[in-house]
Amino acid sequence: MTLAEKSLSDQTSEELKSETDIDVLTIGETIVDFISIEPADSLSEAATFRRYLGGSPANIAVNVSKLGGQAAVISKTGIGAFGQFLKGELQYHGVDTDYLIMDHRVHTTFIFVSQTSGTPDFEASRNGDYKLTSEEVSEEAIARAKVIHASTWPFSLEPCRSAAFKAFQLGYEQGKIVSFDPNYSPRIWPDYQNAQEVIRELYQYVTITKASLDDSHRFFGPNHRPEEYIEMFHELGPRTVVFTMGKEGATISEDGKILGHMPARPIEVVDATGAGDSFWAGFLVAMLDGNSLERCLLFAREIVEMKLEMVGPLPSVIDRTEIYARMPESLSNR
Amino acid sequence: MTLAEKSLSDQTSEELKSETDIDVLTIGETIVDFISIEPADSLSEAATFRRYLGGSPANIAVNVSKLGGQAAVISKTGIGAFGQFLKGELQYHGVDTDYLIMDHRVHTTFIFVSQTSGTPDFEASRNGDYKLTSEEVSEEAIARAKVIHASTWPFSLEPCRSAAFKAFQLGYEQGKIVSFDPNYSPRIWPDYQNAQEVIRELYQYVTITKASLDDSHRFFGPNHRPEEYIEMFHELGPRTVVFTMGKEGATISEDGKILGHMPARPIEVVDATGAGDSFWAGFLVAMLDGNSLERCLLFAREIVEMKLEMVGPLPSVIDRTEIYARMPESLSNR
Repeated sequence: MTLAEKSLSDQTSEELKSETDIDVLTIGETIVDFISIEPADSLSEAATFRRYLGGSPANIAVNVSKLGGQAAVISKTGIGAFGQFLKGELQYHGVDTDYLIMDHRVHTTFIFVSQTSGTPDFEASRNGDYKLTSEEVSEEAIARAKVIHASTWPFSLEPCRSAAFKAFQLGYEQGKIVSFDPNYSPRIWPDYQNAQEVIRELYQYVTITKASLDDSHRFFGPNHRPEEYIEMFHELGPRTVVFTMGKEGATISEDGKILGHMPARPIEVVDATGAGDSFWAGFLVAMLDGNSLERCLLFAREIVEMKLEMVGPLPSVIDRTEIYARMPESLSNR
Repeated sequence: MTLAEKSLSDQTSEELKSETDIDVLTIGETIVDFISIEPADSLSEAATFRRYLGGSPANIAVNVSKLGGQAAVISKTGIGAFGQFLKGELQYHGVDTDYLIMDHRVHTTFIFVSQTSGTPDFEASRNGDYKLTSEEVSEEAIARAKVIHASTWPFSLEPCRSAAFKAFQLGYEQGKIVSFDPNYSPRIWPDYQNAQEVIRELYQYVTITKASLDDSHRFFGPNHRPEEYIEMFHELGPRTVVFTMGKEGATISEDGKILGHMPARPIEVVDATGAGDSFWAGFLVAMLDGNSLERCLLFAREIVEMKLEMVGPLPSVIDRTEIYARMPESLSNR
């Protein structure tokens, strides 16, 4: 039976749990984020920086772990102080680092980011992250996982592109949930035509995608309505599309049919850093708990609100049962 | 008339000044030094970093400029915030950046250093610096220069190795002062055998070398007396060897004959960062002023002491005449 023949929630709750012990396996960038200590609109004005665990897939893995799930990463870093730091951060949060490749021939990838209330200026120095090879993608890791997740980073350069393709293809063939975040950035992937081709190709293996309105503007061009973007994503492959629109909330669609729209609630946003990764970790964990897709969206909203209302990352331990108990039953009584 | 036929001081004072308008042209690494804000013996323990202009040749150029000389660099950086920062720092200090290559295809090279009273732990993320090509070494720049200087960095990797070889060979053929600092580090150049071969080859173009006792231990092995190391350096090519031994002072030798030894004076060392680059900038500037080699050594000692006794880099403007006036006449009345 393939994924296309059954609902995601059926699949996860009935079968995968008994066979697999990694809830979410992310593949791609585990990197050092150097964030400026002083606020600065331009990176040129920033003189001091603090190091953090970075990379969207790594942060999703950490958030899954905070929510009580078992997460693992397939990534490559150097063996020096910064590779050790990243491994230590992952392990501190309970993320399985069995498939983290530390390679003495590479440097750990860095990204420098200005701390600003506007759009952060950033500069990436990519090295180790993209040097992950297909051979280094463990088939055991894929077999152990319920969900395989990646963003566009690993697909932007070889040999990591082939590595991520291998993980997606294997995951798809084994009936896993294959999750993709089309967070395309021309700064990371300057060749737009190449990005179009590669992303369209990888989508054949994707079962669920989380796309923002901004992502959609960049990928399909700016002149469409949300329902049109959702339809376009479905046409590329995935059964399930989670379409996020910031303050306009999020819409969920399955098999080309919109299941519902969830408004964002009015909250005071204190710190938006990592909000998307919190949202998606929440959604995936709720899916693996066997919730309906609508309930997954409601759970994800609780997690992203928790993140937005506090400075810094999510707390180390988050009680899922407490959140399930307090959140609305369905999108209709929101 | 070639360099071998005349004394360095004769050459610089009589001929070069009229033909050339760059006193010291350094080739090699212009990089960002990220130095930890908190003291830390290991880089893994350091969480916050401040950015500085880094790279020994870049710092020598800045120091030459502070001493009133005209300096220029041949280096490659990226075009982003950090490349802009480096260019801005060089220009602020009056260094000619006409031959600084800013290339959109590369990242600026970073080095992370722990701030410690012991030996600093460091990790380099090399990118732009080593991607300088031979074609990017301006023959005009070489022709305009009195001194060409480099350390081992650019020779450790291609294509920058060929670029540095071109600069050294052209400089030598045009009778310039060609200066080399054999600051070999296995962290930067892991293939020791390759380093031995390349450094021995490049020394054929070197007219003056500044070697420390530590450099000599690493390059020739640890079991020799200072006079033996000096002889070994002469045999590789350079007419003039400046041999530095930290608290044991420095010895100068020309054409295989030791001209004199200068003791270090007892001072309170406050900050040793960049001491070697201060010393060598002082030595080169004194040479270009037409001083005897012994007087160059005495002038360099004044500059390095100024550096060691203060926190941070040398002051922006240093009055050479004031230093000449106060320093001893010769090594014999030190």
